[in-house]
Amino acid sequence: MIIGTGHYLPEVCKRNKDFLENEFFDANGDGYENANDIIIEKFYDITKIEERRYIRPDQNNSDIATIAAERAIKDADIDPETLDYIICATNFGEVIFGDSRSNFMPSIAVRVKNKLGLKNPKIVAYDMVFGCPGWVESMIQAEAFIKAGLAKKVLVIGTETLSRVVDIHDRDSMIFADGAGAVVVEGKDASDGGLLSHNTRSHTLDEAHYLFNGPTYKPGVDDKNLYIKMQGRQIYTFALKHVPVAIKQTIEDAGLDITDISKVLIHQANEKMDEAIIKRLYKLYEKDVPAGAMPMTISKFGNSSVATIPTMLDLILKQQLGDHQIQKGDNVVFTSVGAGMHINAIVYRF
Amino acid sequence: MIIGTGHYLPEVCKRNKDFLENEFFDANGDGYENANDIIIEKFYDITKIEERRYIRPDQNNSDIATIAAERAIKDADIDPETLDYIICATNFGEVIFGDSRSNFMPSIAVRVKNKLGLKNPKIVAYDMVFGCPGWVESMIQAEAFIKAGLAKKVLVIGTETLSRVVDIHDRDSMIFADGAGAVVVEGKDASDGGLLSHNTRSHTLDEAHYLFNGPTYKPGVDDKNLYIKMQGRQIYTFALKHVPVAIKQTIEDAGLDITDISKVLIHQANEKMDEAIIKRLYKLYEKDVPAGAMPMTISKFGNSSVATIPTMLDLILKQQLGDHQIQKGDNVVFTSVGAGMHINAIVYRF
Repeated sequence: MIIGTGHYLPEVCKRNKDFLENEFFDANGDGYENANDIIIEKFYDITKIEERRYIRPDQNNSDIATIAAERAIKDADIDPETLDYIICATNFGEVIFGDSRSNFMPSIAVRVKNKLGLKNPKIVAYDMVFGCPGWVESMIQAEAFIKAGLAKKVLVIGTETLSRVVDIHDRDSMIFADGAGAVVVEGKDASDGGLLSHNTRSHTLDEAHYLFNGPTYKPGVDDKNLYIKMQGRQIYTFALKHVPVAIKQTIEDAGLDITDISKVLIHQANEKMDEAIIKRLYKLYEKDVPAGAMPMTISKFGNSSVATIPTMLDLILKQQLGDHQIQKGDNVVFTSVGAGMHINAIVYRF
Repeated sequence: MIIGTGHYLPEVCKRNKDFLENEFFDANGDGYENANDIIIEKFYDITKIEERRYIRPDQNNSDIATIAAERAIKDADIDPETLDYIICATNFGEVIFGDSRSNFMPSIAVRVKNKLGLKNPKIVAYDMVFGCPGWVESMIQAEAFIKAGLAKKVLVIGTETLSRVVDIHDRDSMIFADGAGAVVVEGKDASDGGLLSHNTRSHTLDEAHYLFNGPTYKPGVDDKNLYIKMQGRQIYTFALKHVPVAIKQTIEDAGLDITDISKVLIHQANEKMDEAIIKRLYKLYEKDVPAGAMPMTISKFGNSSVATIPTMLDLILKQQLGDHQIQKGDNVVFTSVGAGMHINAIVYRF
């Protein structure tokens, strides 16, 4: 079960109006008819993103991961030398300012363990690449290690600095953000709660390249830089078709009904999409969505990939996200969809 | 237990003499006093590498991973749609020819699943970043998933194209090679054999940057390219100190003695280092190293990172590595050391 949570919210606040001067092109390298203020307004209408956080130029992915980890360890009130695993979900590794190169040598998990000053060599530290659903999947892996007797305590981090890999000439760059979230999971008596059920789906036949790294949309640029790119419409349709069904399956696998679920913590990529997903989920049970069922952070934090759900969870548990609360005994769904295309869902009892 | 193995050995054979025209510099950007023929001779004396394999310009990491996977699946004689996981150990992801950029979006595991044409979304595909010990660690993860009831059949791939990330101005570039190896693991009755014990160590306090990505050694180059770099002497000392002890612990954890071990399949980075490690291991038991205990592939294949051990295993099982054989009931050690610095060891009963 989760015994501690922490997150780091980067300091630099990038507002929608900060994109007013960007030169946007479409995937064919053509400019848009609309002026940027219209483009940004339409972007806001769909995603509801007002602002997002970027790390400072002197920070890197492993730095913010370390802060989130320190906070989760402190919250758990454990000696970090007693951890068995540090699992770090990330898709771009360390990416220095002014460049878009991924660097996974050493891995972020190793860098975090190093920066935490941990001496115990028995703490196994590895990175997990699984798109935006990487943090939820790492929670499933942590649970598997505990169940198989390989671990008692696991630090599960989701950390990404998408500001370093966005194409400033791509409208979709406005979606992405930086962030880090972490939890400490401990194997305890199941009656105390914990992971009740989980499901993962990797749809890779037609969907493998819905999210991909590609060159800038700006025509005439002759470099080899790679940036995060997405086929937004396809992702929207895909998510709406597959995510509600996957969540329902997971709730059933836990032996529960939708009325037993207190909250659905969903990956934040697009508010309109998330609203449609939750509506369809409840519709599968012929129910309306209850107020407060789906906490949202996207308007202020954008899409920070693997960091989104652990950040939101920490905010709720610390009573820093409006009126949202999680009480002991609550059944909460964590669910995410992203590059792969992967989908996963967990029912977690607090 | 392992029910199928496969590997892909890239076609392009790069001989030591092919480095004669390289312009080598040390880490300070200074040239060497010795001519290249002397540098190469000394390199050979230590590593015993004569040649290594590179992929063709039209190939990529996911292509060779897919071939190795296909061969392992065929060898296992299973319907690949019945797999539960595809775990892919890699540290650089997809790296196209003429560039050194890592691309993990989508992951190699996703690309492989896509190229295999697999439709079943329940096959979870992810990449694991754990330095050269990534394949052995993925075997441990596969075992954990099976033990925890999450999986019955797992495809475990180790694949890397280091030719795309070597600095041609660094002597150490001669060590690195390309390759892909894969196995299919199935959860069966323990009496049939399988993974008896395992140990993993992540030494990250002083050792995190013994292997790292850094700029070219050539002075005056003003690009941001990153290449694989190593502190060879530190790695040598580290490996010699920690690897024999870790292997011994793993043999003890299996309830076995060194005399019960048929073979030690060790990661191939440097023949002198591997010889010293195995000698020290047997010395811990006050024994000499028996003939044939440590199969070597380094002279012909160099260091292909995560691909080395599964490639060697497949060659032995197919009787393509000299007189080496593995019989049913044999206890075999898989052990690796690399970027992290990570060390791991498995005792596997065939």
